[in-house]
Amino acid sequence: MATVGSRAARFTDQQIDMAHGAGGKASRRLVEGLIVPALMPDAIGEPLNDVAVLSAGGDRFALTTDSFVVRPLRFPGGSIGDLAVNGTVNDLAVGGARALALVCSLIVEAGTPTDVLRGEIDAMAAGAARAGVRIVGGDTKVVEHGKADGLYITTTGIGRVDARAALSVAAVRPGDRVIVTGYIGDHGITVLLARGDIDLAADLRSDTRSVYPFAAALVDAIGGDLHWMRDPTRGGLATSLNELARDCGFAVTLDEEAVPVRDEVRGACELLGLDPLHIANEGQLVAIVSGEAADRALDAVRAVPGGEAASIIGRIEPAPARTVLATAAYGGTRVVDMLVGDPLPRIC
Amino acid sequence: MATVGSRAARFTDQQIDMAHGAGGKASRRLVEGLIVPALMPDAIGEPLNDVAVLSAGGDRFALTTDSFVVRPLRFPGGSIGDLAVNGTVNDLAVGGARALALVCSLIVEAGTPTDVLRGEIDAMAAGAARAGVRIVGGDTKVVEHGKADGLYITTTGIGRVDARAALSVAAVRPGDRVIVTGYIGDHGITVLLARGDIDLAADLRSDTRSVYPFAAALVDAIGGDLHWMRDPTRGGLATSLNELARDCGFAVTLDEEAVPVRDEVRGACELLGLDPLHIANEGQLVAIVSGEAADRALDAVRAVPGGEAASIIGRIEPAPARTVLATAAYGGTRVVDMLVGDPLPRIC
Repeated sequence: MATVGSRAARFTDQQIDMAHGAGGKASRRLVEGLIVPALMPDAIGEPLNDVAVLSAGGDRFALTTDSFVVRPLRFPGGSIGDLAVNGTVNDLAVGGARALALVCSLIVEAGTPTDVLRGEIDAMAAGAARAGVRIVGGDTKVVEHGKADGLYITTTGIGRVDARAALSVAAVRPGDRVIVTGYIGDHGITVLLARGDIDLAADLRSDTRSVYPFAAALVDAIGGDLHWMRDPTRGGLATSLNELARDCGFAVTLDEEAVPVRDEVRGACELLGLDPLHIANEGQLVAIVSGEAADRALDAVRAVPGGEAASIIGRIEPAPARTVLATAAYGGTRVVDMLVGDPLPRIC
Repeated sequence: MATVGSRAARFTDQQIDMAHGAGGKASRRLVEGLIVPALMPDAIGEPLNDVAVLSAGGDRFALTTDSFVVRPLRFPGGSIGDLAVNGTVNDLAVGGARALALVCSLIVEAGTPTDVLRGEIDAMAAGAARAGVRIVGGDTKVVEHGKADGLYITTTGIGRVDARAALSVAAVRPGDRVIVTGYIGDHGITVLLARGDIDLAADLRSDTRSVYPFAAALVDAIGGDLHWMRDPTRGGLATSLNELARDCGFAVTLDEEAVPVRDEVRGACELLGLDPLHIANEGQLVAIVSGEAADRALDAVRAVPGGEAASIIGRIEPAPARTVLATAAYGGTRVVDMLVGDPLPRIC
């Protein structure tokens, strides 16, 4: 199995650039080459997860934290407040855990109108109510005007791990199927267009939502046949699947035709020279399930409101090792790499 | 008992200013008038704590989060990395909990030299090792150059609450004593001087450290006679004690002579027109203990390395209700208010 320690080189970049925060290759190098060796030496040699699991009193609890720095603060379909709640709920969900409680820490730019802050506080409250999670505490700091973009939010969530969920990259086997819960790329392209830097209009909305109902439906429907889950945010589906391929040591082969992509997203990506597989999602889940359970898994996801467009998009193959391939309708096959650089900064 | 709901007015300030992040009166208005009513409606009517307590499997767990935006990043005696670990460990400690695990989220400014980031990562690792807590996960975001001051860090900690600690403002009674673990104001004045904005030199170091050993010593020594604890950071000892006075409904009377203040801090405060009681600390604990147990409590704190300057600095009196008073050596008595405004921005 691929590990942090076995492949991480010491981080030698002289300074931090936007790409280090984009969730792709540069982020991976920073985390594996600098942060993990210093802060979490025990994690060297382990696949990196979005959640840490702690055992207490016979239960297993998952803990996860994320900062949100999306720009602009509001965009069609959502806002930083929604993202901050859903993003953390989703990290727990793909760790097999239902969120029990969140804490949130706000860094507010001096001069921010109270109505803007109130709007995001209300968005967090509404998001938490929709996701069925309580916000139990927080902190507020203020920095000088110009030293933040209105508001940065960090949320941390704790959840109880479903004992039936036996999620591990070690469980992934050739013959397993790849399921995605819906259209990809909506969030990243929506935020990009909301900035107004690009002369392009499209009727798109962020997909920000809790993916817990999908995770729960999968565990209910197929239990131990559910092997691995992620919510493909920064770096998109391609980055999540490359991490999987690297960590499990097998190939992930995608049927490009089967990946749900809206025409608006595909069109914007073509114009901008982007790959929808690299675009961030904030309300999709990608799951690896056993081949035998794949149809049941798909039915279960499609039965969840909002899961109607779910699709089986690929499978795990023995080779080529640690590689993601996509096969197009016309039969050509390409290697799908992790995100490189930062074509879409600050999308979450 | 004073409560959020009974005294919080709706927040009507039109924009967020530095004072709202200073930990004093304006912060309190923002939190109680805007944030708590929207995010934590269940907490209306409850005294605000630095930790949220969750029950699971017969144990009680404390959860707390804090963002750190101190400027400059490094100062005599510490740095943002130390603060980020100790601050969260300390919030758990004064909640009667030993930190089990931390997660950390970094917001890094593009252009930050890698050596600066590495220095703070190493400071976090060293702080965690000293405090005996594991860092189990994290997140990294990058914002454009100019959009942060190098680095903001948010840490969230989870700890197990010591079953012997029966901390509650409801346990505070007239006749209780106020104990502080050492010299106050070192941190705030050190950071202020480190900015170089003021033409003043003093041989001072931040007191940043874990206060858990003091909290543990108190629980060990006096158990249920320990009634309440805080680590007086932003807003200083005066703000923590005003919150106590407000929440318990009694008076806190301080013997000003007994409060440990270094000459350098007192001198800087006199020059700057500040009150040492309003200056932030990052390694002190203030405890309310029963009168009968006060001497044992003091002995226990003084026996902890670094606790030699601990002192009994005051007592709880029945009246004047919700007020902090300080009596000087010459006999005059003054009302000590919460911090107002933000004379010392960004000290944690």
